[in-house]
Amino acid sequence: MERVALRAEVNKTSIYRRWPTREALVEAALARVHGAVARAAGGHGTLQADLEALARSVAALLSSPLGRALTGSALAGGGALAASSRKRLEQQASAELERLAGRARQRGEWAEHASPRPLLALLVGAVMHRVLLERAPASGAWLRDAVSVLVRGVSPPSGRRSNARASSAR
Amino acid sequence: MERVALRAEVNKTSIYRRWPTREALVEAALARVHGAVARAAGGHGTLQADLEALARSVAALLSSPLGRALTGSALAGGGALAASSRKRLEQQASAELERLAGRARQRGEWAEHASPRPLLALLVGAVMHRVLLERAPASGAWLRDAVSVLVRGVSPPSGRRSNARASSAR
Repeated sequence: MERVALRAEVNKTSIYRRWPTREALVEAALARVHGAVARAAGGHGTLQADLEALARSVAALLSSPLGRALTGSALAGGGALAASSRKRLEQQASAELERLAGRARQRGEWAEHASPRPLLALLVGAVMHRVLLERAPASGAWLRDAVSVLVRGVSPPSGRRSNARASSAR
Repeated sequence: MERVALRAEVNKTSIYRRWPTREALVEAALARVHGAVARAAGGHGTLQADLEALARSVAALLSSPLGRALTGSALAGGGALAASSRKRLEQQASAELERLAGRARQRGEWAEHASPRPLLALLVGAVMHRVLLERAPASGAWLRDAVSVLVRGVSPPSGRRSNARASSAR
């Protein structure tokens, strides 16, 4: 909590007033990530655009001082987040990804059998690696290439050509 | 450095003796991750198996107390790793991934135009998300599904059927 206050350049009391426990703070951080997922899933017309928007939201959060401190705390703290909170957040994220996948499926961009589940860890994880470890922006060609792998990875064999068209038409 | 010593349950002097600076410590941690990449790229016959092995090595590192502390330090420390070290490590990782992709290409599992570059952040990032945030093992069905997305994401359109065969033959 102390480190979070220091990083956010506010008094520790301000942190405790808003988030009385360390767990509440960590859960709030993760809820913001999931909020970003929900907003990104707002529909940009193609799966590529939806996932790029999602990645940008996560990157923006990770790059903000508070987001950085919160994520660091979530990563560092052994049992900082109770299993129940973690389960609830994961269910929210899964539901949001299901909606995104549902729309992509209607456009023929998502194979019937492909599960949306792995996408969260793959996309959010890639952004974490890029922003937190590589210290480079999750944007431009890097973002396009990383998201392309995921789009192709979940697309039906026959959907590939139309994906390419949709992506070059942007 | 203090937190690393605490987590590793050794004296701070032991840490400084081996890694005189914070930067040396962080670089050593990342070099170990890249060492895991190189070993995983030893060749398991299919791209799916190679990438699963790579993910397992990274997960094992992240789950070890020292690995955990080192990664936490790398993630938390603003400019802990100098740009030059980061660049060197990234070049090593790229070269290792190129070799892995080269072998997959020979087996017809990798599309000519697909760049191996995004795979590092996608795979290592997914394992980070799974192990550090979700606190769940990067193994079993989770690992298979996540790696499948990547394998399909880089495979040539015609290579899909043979990938499916190779993967079900394991």
